[in-house]
Amino acid sequence: MLRHFLAVEDWPDAEIASLLDEAEALAEGRAGEAPALPGKVLALLFLDPSLRTRTSFEVAMAREGGRTVVLEPGRGAWPLETRDGVTMDGDAVEHVREAAAVLGRYAEALAVRAFPRGASWAEAREDAVVRSFARHAGVPVINLESARRHPCQELGDALTLRRKVGRDLSGRRFVLTWAWHPKALPTAVPVSAALAAARQGMDVTIAHPAGYDLDPDDLKTIGAVAARAGGRVSVSHDLDDAAAGADVLYAKSWGCLADFGDPAAEGARRAGLRHWIADARRMERTRGGRGLLMHCLPVRRDVEVSSRVLDSPWSAVIDQAENRLHAQRALLRRILGDRPEAR
Amino acid sequence: MLRHFLAVEDWPDAEIASLLDEAEALAEGRAGEAPALPGKVLALLFLDPSLRTRTSFEVAMAREGGRTVVLEPGRGAWPLETRDGVTMDGDAVEHVREAAAVLGRYAEALAVRAFPRGASWAEAREDAVVRSFARHAGVPVINLESARRHPCQELGDALTLRRKVGRDLSGRRFVLTWAWHPKALPTAVPVSAALAAARQGMDVTIAHPAGYDLDPDDLKTIGAVAARAGGRVSVSHDLDDAAAGADVLYAKSWGCLADFGDPAAEGARRAGLRHWIADARRMERTRGGRGLLMHCLPVRRDVEVSSRVLDSPWSAVIDQAENRLHAQRALLRRILGDRPEAR
Amino acid sequence: MLRHFLAVEDWPDAEIASLLDEAEALAEGRAGEAPALPGKVLALLFLDPSLRTRTSFEVAMAREGGRTVVLEPGRGAWPLETRDGVTMDGDAVEHVREAAAVLGRYAEALAVRAFPRGASWAEAREDAVVRSFARHAGVPVINLESARRHPCQELGDALTLRRKVGRDLSGRRFVLTWAWHPKALPTAVPVSAALAAARQGMDVTIAHPAGYDLDPDDLKTIGAVAARAGGRVSVSHDLDDAAAGADVLYAKSWGCLADFGDPAAEGARRAGLRHWIADARRMERTRGGRGLLMHCLPVRRDVEVSSRVLDSPWSAVIDQAENRLHAQRALLRRILGDRPEAR
Repeated sequence: MLRHFLAVEDWPDAEIASLLDEAEALAEGRAGEAPALPGKVLALLFLDPSLRTRTSFEVAMAREGGRTVVLEPGRGAWPLETRDGVTMDGDAVEHVREAAAVLGRYAEALAVRAFPRGASWAEAREDAVVRSFARHAGVPVINLESARRHPCQELGDALTLRRKVGRDLSGRRFVLTWAWHPKALPTAVPVSAALAAARQGMDVTIAHPAGYDLDPDDLKTIGAVAARAGGRVSVSHDLDDAAAGADVLYAKSWGCLADFGDPAAEGARRAGLRHWIADARRMERTRGGRGLLMHCLPVRRDVEVSSRVLDSPWSAVIDQAENRLHAQRALLRRILGDRPEAR
Repeated sequence: MLRHFLAVEDWPDAEIASLLDEAEALAEGRAGEAPALPGKVLALLFLDPSLRTRTSFEVAMAREGGRTVVLEPGRGAWPLETRDGVTMDGDAVEHVREAAAVLGRYAEALAVRAFPRGASWAEAREDAVVRSFARHAGVPVINLESARRHPCQELGDALTLRRKVGRDLSGRRFVLTWAWHPKALPTAVPVSAALAAARQGMDVTIAHPAGYDLDPDDLKTIGAVAARAGGRVSVSHDLDDAAAGADVLYAKSWGCLADFGDPAAEGARRAGLRHWIADARRMERTRGGRGLLMHCLPVRRDVEVSSRVLDSPWSAVIDQAENRLHAQRALLRRILGDRPEAR
Repeated sequence: MLRHFLAVEDWPDAEIASLLDEAEALAEGRAGEAPALPGKVLALLFLDPSLRTRTSFEVAMAREGGRTVVLEPGRGAWPLETRDGVTMDGDAVEHVREAAAVLGRYAEALAVRAFPRGASWAEAREDAVVRSFARHAGVPVINLESARRHPCQELGDALTLRRKVGRDLSGRRFVLTWAWHPKALPTAVPVSAALAAARQGMDVTIAHPAGYDLDPDDLKTIGAVAARAGGRVSVSHDLDDAAAGADVLYAKSWGCLADFGDPAAEGARRAGLRHWIADARRMERTRGGRGLLMHCLPVRRDVEVSSRVLDSPWSAVIDQAENRLHAQRALLRRILGDRPEAR
């Protein structure tokens, strides 16, 4: 069976734990620098833009002796149709069915970024693009951020928690907080960040203004993962209260799912919420005033997180980005390597 | 002399035959996987977009141990002037003369895609861009699809015919059919597809509505290649009739050359031609109802070819795309390899 | 300390001299072809377009066994904020502080192209983007052309002078001439070209219409470099006079700094200056009628330089471009190599 990586929870807990062990060894130079994937090719498709994800995957493959091909359909390549049963007499000149199958003949694995698409959250949450690639590629498909998940960010964040807070994280307090931002952003990262903490058995609080609830199914998954790891999950509408005594404050903006596809309504809803920012006052309230500030990047300075926090020892954001590289190397070794447990 | 690859028929028949033998060996893993082009650099210039061609060439070079540089003049690089004798005080900031000569100092070979350009077919058919690159590069130039030819598609299609229909193709029936499409597309692929079949000695029928004749010189070349191989070429205006007993139905849309540069006239001409589609009814008419459906991709589903056909065993379109990779590896080995017959 | 390469004069004269020796050895195949940078990764950021610079750096890294990642913020990646202290609620979604620091965790060095930005020359001349990258990257940063300098072009041009005119250049006449062009271009290349010649002890004349003076600080630097090398620098407003007896005529257009950011005023100023062109009549006036025509490319034919000159033995423009590759290989070996003097 193909080893797709669309969501971390699709893989057995034990394998994720061992993957994170290997990522930590790679990060600390203990895993051997011999390239593990000589001659392997990973095709990266970006239907939405990227800096960190693209660079960290290109470098991860380079460090392992492999190659990457980067495609940006709609820019240097054709726009793709992702819906089935459509008579294709509009703009799209190629269907994912063919694009995925063809790329699967050229590369050992595909990696796909496709932000939420559709007229409603009910449609967007189906993640039609990455699921369609996984169905038709014939080789493993890696999710580089879909409407629902950013599993590589989740791996990198889990690694950051282990390296910066400690390997035994059970009972440590992880606060994911909504932050104001001029646009309604996807919920993939907040869900994945909460999952990263829940999987380590942390005590997870999700702080957000009323109306900014995450998708109920995703909340249920976070709760289930937490339960398996001996942790728990709660929701708060008061950031000051939530931040008190936190080990980690993870700031991230996301859009109201009920207003999905209606920027005017969403803009009105978030008017007056600019005080939802991770600033020094909130960081002072964390455990011993020395909690960790996390953010997936890109971050808008003095909008989501204050400059003072970003430029201080509180901030782990650059380490988070670096850990993407180590985590993805460990992931690629499992998906593309020649070991018996791989494809 | 430089080994440009602008059209398949520029090379000796015997060399193309041996190239296809090597491509088949590569496809079947019989050619040795030792990279044949370590350290070699191929620069790919896309003046028009690409998914398959770009990926298959990048992967082909990767498999052979070489490198690629991909340039997209007008996007990440400068727009290029291709006409001689022009005072360059307009948009283009660089002439092909300099761009080609410079890239020829950096890379061992250039590969160029330039769709038809110009106010008339009389102008476009001169293929000024690729010819200009070939004249000024100082290294071999590979045509990645010009107004007149798509020779790499032709190699891949020839390989598909050999692998899917049989090595002895003489007398087998190959039907190239026009298909409706919302836009007037270039004739490079239909000409190259017909040449691929003609070169194998097949009995070639070109089916299209009145007014969609291919360029007379190209038709003459197809006829000459067929004659050398013991095959023949005919034209039909009746797809149902042409499809009867065919071994292969190759669907492709193209624009009326008389209407070149006049989308309104072309649109009026093709109104009412949507029944020119490769559908299951036509496939049932092929030899034993088991003919092969070919298309170069990208294909518009339920416009050029029906979904039912594309998702059935009739379809060879994914194999065609895969064979591009094997054929191009064989091509690159001849152009860039260190064998005595190469440059 | 990090070995940034933002301007040639930031490095010791002796090291530049030895770098050029190595570049010359590489150009002549005397430096050993064994890749010196296996496994090293260079990230290239283009905030402005490129053909030669991108290709020559990608090929330079390929020849040395390393890898490149090419990013184009604002196209396939996020637009970047470069100003400090800005509340980021506008278009830019990421600050250079984070982008530079993150990329510095992925790659062994960064290379950045950022043309002049800002409302005035006073602002643009600060080169905020490349300086910001250098401050925050944590790894060496290479300037791929900023408002003030194009140091890689300078190295390539110095190599061209040595290879085409001779190793002892003291007292030879180098004329940098302004040329008409439809747009106001940056002054980085003319300054760097004059520096290349001054560093070799040449007798440098800068010819331009009244009002097109280079930045006074840059002129002072050119003068200081010339003085150290035993050469001298003068300015002329008469191209015919300046060209008389020149060993080299280096043509380049640039904008009036006083009109920076005001295209209408600049356009009016250069109206009537189309006779500032490097044509055969001027080349005939060079030493023995056999002077060298140089230009950094891209060049507008029959606008900056006549076609007749570009297509004649006078022209060294293709050699200049080739020498970029050799010079950059030598540069990368010093910045990324494992020798004791490198990082």
